[in-house]
Amino acid sequence: MRAESARATFERGQDTLRVSYELHRENRARAVEAMRARGDGDGVVAMTGGRQTRRYSTDNEPLFRQESYFHWMFGVLEGDCHGALDARTGKSTLFVPRLPQEYAIWMGAIETRESFAERYLVDEVMYADEFEGYLKALDTKIYVLKGVNSDSGDVTDGLGAELEAALGATKIDATDALFNVITELRTVKTAREQEVLKYASKISSMAHVEVIRSLKPGMMEYQLESLFKHTCYSRGGMRNESYTSICAAGKNGATLHYGHAGAPNSAQIKEGDLVLMDMGAEYHCYAADITTTVPAGGKFTPDAKIIYEGVLAAHQAVLKALKPGCAWLDLQRLAETHILRALVDGGFLVGDIDEMMAKRVSATFMPHGLGHHLGVDTHDVGGYGLPGTPARSTEPGLKNCRTASLMKEGNVMTIEPGCYFIDVLLDRALADGSDIKQYFVADRVNACRSMGGVRLEDNVVVTADGCQSWTSVPRTVAEVEAVMAGASWP
Amino acid sequence: MRAESARATFERGQDTLRVSYELHRENRARAVEAMRARGDGDGVVAMTGGRQTRRYSTDNEPLFRQESYFHWMFGVLEGDCHGALDARTGKSTLFVPRLPQEYAIWMGAIETRESFAERYLVDEVMYADEFEGYLKALDTKIYVLKGVNSDSGDVTDGLGAELEAALGATKIDATDALFNVITELRTVKTAREQEVLKYASKISSMAHVEVIRSLKPGMMEYQLESLFKHTCYSRGGMRNESYTSICAAGKNGATLHYGHAGAPNSAQIKEGDLVLMDMGAEYHCYAADITTTVPAGGKFTPDAKIIYEGVLAAHQAVLKALKPGCAWLDLQRLAETHILRALVDGGFLVGDIDEMMAKRVSATFMPHGLGHHLGVDTHDVGGYGLPGTPARSTEPGLKNCRTASLMKEGNVMTIEPGCYFIDVLLDRALADGSDIKQYFVADRVNACRSMGGVRLEDNVVVTADGCQSWTSVPRTVAEVEAVMAGASWP
Repeated sequence: MRAESARATFERGQDTLRVSYELHRENRARAVEAMRARGDGDGVVAMTGGRQTRRYSTDNEPLFRQESYFHWMFGVLEGDCHGALDARTGKSTLFVPRLPQEYAIWMGAIETRESFAERYLVDEVMYADEFEGYLKALDTKIYVLKGVNSDSGDVTDGLGAELEAALGATKIDATDALFNVITELRTVKTAREQEVLKYASKISSMAHVEVIRSLKPGMMEYQLESLFKHTCYSRGGMRNESYTSICAAGKNGATLHYGHAGAPNSAQIKEGDLVLMDMGAEYHCYAADITTTVPAGGKFTPDAKIIYEGVLAAHQAVLKALKPGCAWLDLQRLAETHILRALVDGGFLVGDIDEMMAKRVSATFMPHGLGHHLGVDTHDVGGYGLPGTPARSTEPGLKNCRTASLMKEGNVMTIEPGCYFIDVLLDRALADGSDIKQYFVADRVNACRSMGGVRLEDNVVVTADGCQSWTSVPRTVAEVEAVMAGASWP
Repeated sequence: MRAESARATFERGQDTLRVSYELHRENRARAVEAMRARGDGDGVVAMTGGRQTRRYSTDNEPLFRQESYFHWMFGVLEGDCHGALDARTGKSTLFVPRLPQEYAIWMGAIETRESFAERYLVDEVMYADEFEGYLKALDTKIYVLKGVNSDSGDVTDGLGAELEAALGATKIDATDALFNVITELRTVKTAREQEVLKYASKISSMAHVEVIRSLKPGMMEYQLESLFKHTCYSRGGMRNESYTSICAAGKNGATLHYGHAGAPNSAQIKEGDLVLMDMGAEYHCYAADITTTVPAGGKFTPDAKIIYEGVLAAHQAVLKALKPGCAWLDLQRLAETHILRALVDGGFLVGDIDEMMAKRVSATFMPHGLGHHLGVDTHDVGGYGLPGTPARSTEPGLKNCRTASLMKEGNVMTIEPGCYFIDVLLDRALADGSDIKQYFVADRVNACRSMGGVRLEDNVVVTADGCQSWTSVPRTVAEVEAVMAGASWP
């Protein structure tokens, strides 16, 4: 292994993680190898990085965040770049904006091409205005990124319509060849990537613990979000959230994506509320995604404890079962079975659990999937659509799973079972004509509608013979109550 | 005045400001009145709000922030809405997305049209899919927002090309009539708007003081940004920054827009550094924009004190001079004169100040404008381009002023003189052949290049006979040193 450059790193000082750009060089080498293995080694990969945007018609520039495929490949912090990777030779070329001298006054010293090459560990740096000419001069196929993100349904941009038209259809491979190669590689994290994801999860765990300690009835939900972000940034150098924080007290916990601009974590937390916090930050664009659920007053009510421990049992069972070869939908069903068991034992449901599973009663309480790939995106790519992987289920609950694949060593997943009292779903289940109404103890269920819900989410890596969680937060009822009472953690 | 609805408010609990939606109703009434006054009272104003975006091809949804013209008019928190305002009758109609029942599971309870009408104080609420039909059925001119933002040079979108084409060119007034009416109204803030801007400035001031108190050599620049944002959010309910924070230690202070993704406040603060912090947050989309500059170790060096007090003299002179009728460029020149005076007195320059002003020597040290309109945008609209207002200067420094207008009562402006040691500008000034080289004491100037710079920025409203600053932070050398040593503020 070559000596690592001290300069070709991403770090944020103090005790933050030092990430070597060997991470990205290794990803490029993996891409070249995979292209060659499938017979596409005669071409050049061409990619366009994210653009610096402006807010509507103003000059307000939202903080730039790199496009995730481009980040995986090059790790470039700045906007408006391009990249090329010659699969024949392995040579990487980065194209950076050519900046006017005035730039130095407003944005900072203008970096030389040599400095970029050294900092990003690429073989060559050219200017962005040379990208088109570079591609036109190539006497080989150009592979561009064209494929469907299975979480959004959106198609990746490739090089943009204009440049692709200029290059001509015969020169460009606009199939999903490159997309599938990189997407599949992105689902299996290297040791270097795992180190960054582990760090993101460690710092985000620590911030959850800070928030749990500070939580008191009377606080506003957004104060939890604020403290979480501050802790991740000031103590871990993590400037960006992985996603908009969900800090949901009481009934708000039953809104699965609470926290957005229309439901902005703006309620006051009441004594007796369960508070569901789904918060994670990213480091060098590698995401954490962690959920804790705690009682605002520091003590679980008896019903909250039943629900919480049901979810925890599901969570622990999945962590125990997860290993290479496991089918994701089997893990989903395993979690659901534990949750149904707790609901039966707690008097919320009556009947045979296998029968309820067959009728998808569990989807009333856990309408979302067990988790998802986690990486440069929070909902990381490759859930569906790769050649040879299973298609999406059509059954309630299961259809919301973000993958149905068999697990592989190096997959990094969230494990996030939950149980919620969601009005619209309970109303459907309890309505006349419902084919699952008979399993519900309506009084018990209705009495808990204000509880909202419980979700417990870890970030785990699939190892050779099992899995390892990188999330360290109080999980058992005893641990949560102890930490809220001031005990140290871990 | 009608009784104000307790429900039609924006607030964030605890001691945060309660903003009545009368603010937006009043803005609409002003728009109707202005349209009628210019003979356009026979038409209907049609506007499209901001869209919820996704990050590249993923399902990651960045936190929605409303488009500023639409916010000024309607104050709507949610994305993907439209609005209409009938100038003939004054009737307002809001168009909101028609949501599927599944929305309630993921995003929260679906609000009725009646509830939207009550919450946003509009006369009528329809669904977004009815917007096109509503506009087609109108038998009058439709005014849409078409004009150039003078800070970005970008043109506002109007209703988007597709809908405008569907409506037909004869029906749409696509001149800048509506744009000019609203833009001009936006430059004069109502009492209700001033109350929100004052609150934003008050909380942002308090957060600056928190940061100044915490600042110690050895900290990372981004830790200041993090604490600022946390303080504004957790204590003032301000979820969004007005702009990306600039936390620049030492030489970084000479990069005017430091803090972006390519220069991300990631340096360690050293003993002896001056630290320039340009940070502001927004409340209900009304922005604060404040800059403080303090010595990391708590004590100004003699040279830092010279520069600081020169900028402070400029700052105080402008606050004293600013009143209705003042020409903005005269205020710019006033500030520059004070800074040149300090540089001469401090031995950095030699020569006659009037002569140096004529040769724009000041633009070497303060290459930016004195300030800008402040409102729903940080660089608020209306700086240039409105009928009857002066055009942009072509002189160094003056050409970077964001307006050249005469001040009016109700204008809200930033006052932000600065003095910097910017390598590229000093190199130009000191180069052979420079026509201003003779004024520079090269040794003195060169010795201070590592200082970076000083900027002092307040948010002020122009009153009937002067101006009032809403910014409350330590400003004199004695005040800054006292607060850094632990004194209370204010």
